[in-house]
Amino acid sequence: VRIETLATGDELLTGLIADTNSTYFQQRLLERFGLTVRYGAVVPDLREDIIDALNAAAARADAVLVSGGLGPTADDFTAECAAKAAGVELVEHAGALEHIRARFKKRGIEVTSNNLRQAQVPRGAEVVLNAEGSAPGFVMRIGRCTFFFVPGVPREHRWLVDEMVLPRIETLGGASITPRALAVIKTTGIVESKLEVLVAPLVPKFPRVTFGYRTHPPENHLKLLGPPADVEAARVESLALIGELAFGAGDETLPGVVGAQLSRRQERLALAESCTGGLVAAELTSVPGASGWLESSAVTYTESAKQRWAGVEAKALAEHGAVSEVVAKQMAHGVRAAAKVEWGASVTGYAGPTGGTEKDPVGTVYLAVAGPNGFERTARHSWTGMERERIRRAAAWALMDLLRRSLKA
Amino acid sequence: VRIETLATGDELLTGLIADTNSTYFQQRLLERFGLTVRYGAVVPDLREDIIDALNAAAARADAVLVSGGLGPTADDFTAECAAKAAGVELVEHAGALEHIRARFKKRGIEVTSNNLRQAQVPRGAEVVLNAEGSAPGFVMRIGRCTFFFVPGVPREHRWLVDEMVLPRIETLGGASITPRALAVIKTTGIVESKLEVLVAPLVPKFPRVTFGYRTHPPENHLKLLGPPADVEAARVESLALIGELAFGAGDETLPGVVGAQLSRRQERLALAESCTGGLVAAELTSVPGASGWLESSAVTYTESAKQRWAGVEAKALAEHGAVSEVVAKQMAHGVRAAAKVEWGASVTGYAGPTGGTEKDPVGTVYLAVAGPNGFERTARHSWTGMERERIRRAAAWALMDLLRRSLKA
Repeated sequence: VRIETLATGDELLTGLIADTNSTYFQQRLLERFGLTVRYGAVVPDLREDIIDALNAAAARADAVLVSGGLGPTADDFTAECAAKAAGVELVEHAGALEHIRARFKKRGIEVTSNNLRQAQVPRGAEVVLNAEGSAPGFVMRIGRCTFFFVPGVPREHRWLVDEMVLPRIETLGGASITPRALAVIKTTGIVESKLEVLVAPLVPKFPRVTFGYRTHPPENHLKLLGPPADVEAARVESLALIGELAFGAGDETLPGVVGAQLSRRQERLALAESCTGGLVAAELTSVPGASGWLESSAVTYTESAKQRWAGVEAKALAEHGAVSEVVAKQMAHGVRAAAKVEWGASVTGYAGPTGGTEKDPVGTVYLAVAGPNGFERTARHSWTGMERERIRRAAAWALMDLLRRSLKA
Repeated sequence: VRIETLATGDELLTGLIADTNSTYFQQRLLERFGLTVRYGAVVPDLREDIIDALNAAAARADAVLVSGGLGPTADDFTAECAAKAAGVELVEHAGALEHIRARFKKRGIEVTSNNLRQAQVPRGAEVVLNAEGSAPGFVMRIGRCTFFFVPGVPREHRWLVDEMVLPRIETLGGASITPRALAVIKTTGIVESKLEVLVAPLVPKFPRVTFGYRTHPPENHLKLLGPPADVEAARVESLALIGELAFGAGDETLPGVVGAQLSRRQERLALAESCTGGLVAAELTSVPGASGWLESSAVTYTESAKQRWAGVEAKALAEHGAVSEVVAKQMAHGVRAAAKVEWGASVTGYAGPTGGTEKDPVGTVYLAVAGPNGFERTARHSWTGMERERIRRAAAWALMDLLRRSLKA
């Protein structure tokens, strides 16, 4: 089944909004049937452009989801264009008319003549009343292709996708619908090309699985798409090759994984952050229930704050400098002791644009994790040529990942 | 000039992400030249689909922005498809090769052979080295249409749109391009409709200026677009009507404005954050040079941390609870005293999804600012029906805005 989307609306072509309606449809289609959309088009509110796009899609596709242009105002004429493309006339649909009158009555608003235009659909179209709005959805053929027309208002769009479009696509697809699965494996701390090299041996082994790579700095994801059994086998083998570099799968996030580890261990964490300036704490506390396992973060942006809250010694600062392994260690142990919790973690570094030394240029960070029974782990990273925000984000992710590995141990 | 976009990538058709790159290009095109995109297409990582889409666009458009598929991995073959569509071969570009080697060397990463593929471009294409990544941008003709090829990684995409695409579209457009100016006035703490009401008297006065409103929660921006002289006059009059509610203009950010105020006053700030979990500190330290005016932030996620670092009394916690005006005040004064700086600021609240009381439901936050000469200002907000991350962000912005107003006084 070749499926396409056609989104109409000037707002989608003038930088006002991105076409997130199609994203929703794509997600549901993949989840329900393992189907993917083969082509997506966006056209402005111009009759000739909409008609051209309908005809072009009819010549290529089996099913097309058309969204937008079903409202009551003068720039809404998708139903009219659909009728033109199919060579039929617009007719008033009694059920749709009744639905509109009932909705307005319920809300105590007077029905104006432009609202009644929303009851007009191409002759022969199957109408589905819309529980979330006044414009009905409708289904019709143009040539041999089935078109689903739904409003662009996200709430209405979603309701009609679920209630009208998906059940009909299932029927339409019949035996040709082959269930597909998507598996996502998430890593941080390695570049995309390295990830590809790691799983390269599996590509010929799983010819029906598509190996895709996505960069969300500082994360790199491997995406496996294909028949469920193949995807599952490829996922297991990929995980074995990627090993400890994988922090999660699917919807998991690095902060969520660290939080789940601490919850499971019934242990708590205190942070001391310098160059990340609170970013690690902000990410970890984005996880609901973080107060169960995050005690505090000392954002110690100056030497005096490092001494006051993280127990760093003046001597260490004078001898090694605030950006050093010695100070990182003292910060982690210091907040762990002050907070009386099982785990302490710290980060100190040069985020730039100024600062740094010859040995430790801008982009250099020191990380430390201190834990029960004298546990201590440190790391040094030096990301050169990256700008301030990317360095801070990379440092925050590196610390969360060091925590994840430490909590696994 | 008929302009189109063509975005490539399975992730754009399988519900993973929406095509926000095209949205950025649309915005810049409208702001700079008053031009709009006439057609947008999205195709998967399939050679025949990319080639078909390139040929179809070449037959219709004057200029096409093609994004994605320039990475180092096996599912990146846009350059190859461009060469096929134009009937030329791929050649290695010496400058691009040098650029890739230099980037990897600088970052201390080994160059793998797939990285070198990124230096291959269609013969005859004009290459623009990409300051934000290893894949170069390139410009070429297919038929009579000019194609701009840029990576899909948003940061790289934006850089090449600004540096490579827009200047060339200006040249391409010739006399059909009328210069337009864009002015942006930024507010926080008022709803979009209130902002519209405030400047409503100016709309008839400046008929050639488009008054646009954009919501970037928790900010609302007024955008004025039109002939440069009209926009400048409308900007001055809008600012007079919006008054103290405007925190900045153009590229200014709220953290940057607060930082500039503190720098100018040569004063320093210490924070105590509860429900925002470090978000205020993370935002403020995103400003380069923040170490000059931000001393520390105590992310006190528990009662014990509030007592230890922010000097909150056990009695206040027992009598009023951690989410109260009394505790917010003690936190602000406490960190100010501990850090020995001019300003202290605090936030405590219920971010949800659980917690809250009848009087102070989820979404309620208390803010306090303490300053020199007994200065004290507090605020209470209660955002109901908002989810955790929006509440946290709204609280962080509200505190920064309270600081901005306090530092103005």
